[in-house]
Amino acid sequence: MFEFPVHATDGAARTGTLRLPHGEVETPVFMPVGTQATVKMLAPEEVEGLGARIILNNTYHLYLRPGHEVVRDLGGLHAFQNWSRPILTDSGGFQVFSLADIRTISEEGVLFRSHIDGSRHLFTPERVMEIERALGADIIMAFDHCPPGQADAALAEEATRRTLQWLERCRTRFLQLREEDPEGPRQTLFPIVQGGVVPELRRMAARATLEMGEWDGVAIGGLSVGEPKPLMYGMLEVLEPELPPALPRYLMGVGYPDDLLEGIGRGVDMFDCVAPTRNGRNGAVWTHEEGQINIKAARNRLDPGPLDPYCGCYTCRTYSRAYLRHLFVAGEWLGMRLLTLHNLHFLVELARQARVAIGEGRYASWSAEWLARFRSRRARAG
Amino acid sequence: MFEFPVHATDGAARTGTLRLPHGEVETPVFMPVGTQATVKMLAPEEVEGLGARIILNNTYHLYLRPGHEVVRDLGGLHAFQNWSRPILTDSGGFQVFSLADIRTISEEGVLFRSHIDGSRHLFTPERVMEIERALGADIIMAFDHCPPGQADAALAEEATRRTLQWLERCRTRFLQLREEDPEGPRQTLFPIVQGGVVPELRRMAARATLEMGEWDGVAIGGLSVGEPKPLMYGMLEVLEPELPPALPRYLMGVGYPDDLLEGIGRGVDMFDCVAPTRNGRNGAVWTHEEGQINIKAARNRLDPGPLDPYCGCYTCRTYSRAYLRHLFVAGEWLGMRLLTLHNLHFLVELARQARVAIGEGRYASWSAEWLARFRSRRARAG
Repeated sequence: MFEFPVHATDGAARTGTLRLPHGEVETPVFMPVGTQATVKMLAPEEVEGLGARIILNNTYHLYLRPGHEVVRDLGGLHAFQNWSRPILTDSGGFQVFSLADIRTISEEGVLFRSHIDGSRHLFTPERVMEIERALGADIIMAFDHCPPGQADAALAEEATRRTLQWLERCRTRFLQLREEDPEGPRQTLFPIVQGGVVPELRRMAARATLEMGEWDGVAIGGLSVGEPKPLMYGMLEVLEPELPPALPRYLMGVGYPDDLLEGIGRGVDMFDCVAPTRNGRNGAVWTHEEGQINIKAARNRLDPGPLDPYCGCYTCRTYSRAYLRHLFVAGEWLGMRLLTLHNLHFLVELARQARVAIGEGRYASWSAEWLARFRSRRARAG
Repeated sequence: MFEFPVHATDGAARTGTLRLPHGEVETPVFMPVGTQATVKMLAPEEVEGLGARIILNNTYHLYLRPGHEVVRDLGGLHAFQNWSRPILTDSGGFQVFSLADIRTISEEGVLFRSHIDGSRHLFTPERVMEIERALGADIIMAFDHCPPGQADAALAEEATRRTLQWLERCRTRFLQLREEDPEGPRQTLFPIVQGGVVPELRRMAARATLEMGEWDGVAIGGLSVGEPKPLMYGMLEVLEPELPPALPRYLMGVGYPDDLLEGIGRGVDMFDCVAPTRNGRNGAVWTHEEGQINIKAARNRLDPGPLDPYCGCYTCRTYSRAYLRHLFVAGEWLGMRLLTLHNLHFLVELARQARVAIGEGRYASWSAEWLARFRSRRARAG
């Protein structure tokens, strides 16, 4: 359990298999986000049908609604939402620092007010471990201090130091909980490496994290939070030689199609992002030759063709752009649903193709060609 | 084509088969409403999967958005929305009289302003036939004058008289259009019998309609528009002996589960209503032993059981009340979708069971028992 055999490497890119209690996951992998125990608009069979093998749920949201104890009493996240494959829960760190109304951040933890009803809550590393244990995901994330992307070096350093201290407490409480309840869910704890966009801080954080104990994987946090893209790619390059090849690497909150390929080329194995679902609900879709387009554009009004002739998803096999545009213009939910499905399929399938290219030892040229085509913004004929 | 063999009769109730260009439909039948060329929240495969064999689309809405010519140019309603089974379009009469801002009603037609953008439009019987021809449904409805349920006898009489005059013009234009375009969609025109809640007016309207020519079916309009239920049932009893058994009878805009059974018992073969979809989006669901319940009720918070233990739909087979309640409380679309599916399944399945009971010659006792159980509001144990 919690093994990660690596199958092929190609430069920094590699393929592997995450062996988890609820099944195996081929990497590199994109994980759809199901914030409130549902990938917005989709039934779990559809998420599985488009090729997803692991989803992410948000601890902060589920703690507030319906409550982690409710989820536990109903059999845990897998039973609750009818998803029998692996699940990863984040720690709520990102949401507490971005959504909630924070009262105080101290060594103890974060005192915040709910974004829903203003009620007061305290997240400590120990408390978050208890919540994630109750939720019962296969992979649970440590509680970290996640500063904004434009944070200065002093704040980045403080957040990094605090994240390491909290990690030690997360680890201790996680091991206790597992010992207290050996029949409970089989879970592994992933640490999160912070460090802002300061190379020495990132290196220090990675080393300190790895020295703390044996992990089954490691996450890179605090990126894709507003900093320029080249800085993000730079940090991945700083970290790549620091991280042991035997551990799967999870780049949190990324990404768009191009970020996925850039990340894979820099040794990342796991990704998650709300972009495919959120964009889909707003009418924005990715296509192979036109990049990101908006279905509501007038030019789609009479277009009998699919969103993307190179895509094999249910939406592209079945519906015209004209119909999809009509659904959006008329405010019909089916439109949001069909575009969500397309975007998720697009990223999940992109990761699958990346695995093939890595296996064939041609990742660099394949991804360069793919990106050039994606960025060409060639409008469809007709 | 457009045949309607009757298989069994049991009192006024009967079973039959509607033979339509896009397939056969067993009656009595409930037709889900897909106002804007989509049954709200559902993909067509799901509508078919829950047992529906014919759907209804709204002419008024599709005329305004995306426009009937757009639909025609994209291959008609069947291709446009990926529904290969039969379709019925209403005439827009009901919507023009209930949704739009009416400027003038004259013998010529109705001048109205769109509820979307205030633009001015004229619906005449001829125009509506042209629009419904472009949409391409199997069954199209005549343009009628549909007054409110509380209309006085004078208005009811005026509307009935006007509906008959317009029917003559609909018929003429419909036959012309078919002749002009013999390769176009194969369609039949159903007349609508108005008459408010005035028995003599209903009888007169039925007789005048039937004398006007040969029809493949006949609709009963202007009921379930605010009048008391016993008056509606009374009108069905007035009409039942007037309508030739060889014609399928369509009660427009009905109904709730009990209305369906009451209607079938009075000789109705076809029903449509937005109640299952609209209620589902509001969290209201039908159950066999508790009648209509609201999923948001606090008592469902920790309930691991299904919405309705007697229902075999995907939602009831798969999800707990606690999860469905969570989806509604958290504002997740999947909740609306799952409850829509349940409610539609409930009505479609109810019609199927009615067919079995009629076939076995025990419709009266079966429906009485079913209704007593539905109205018992027995709360579920546990």
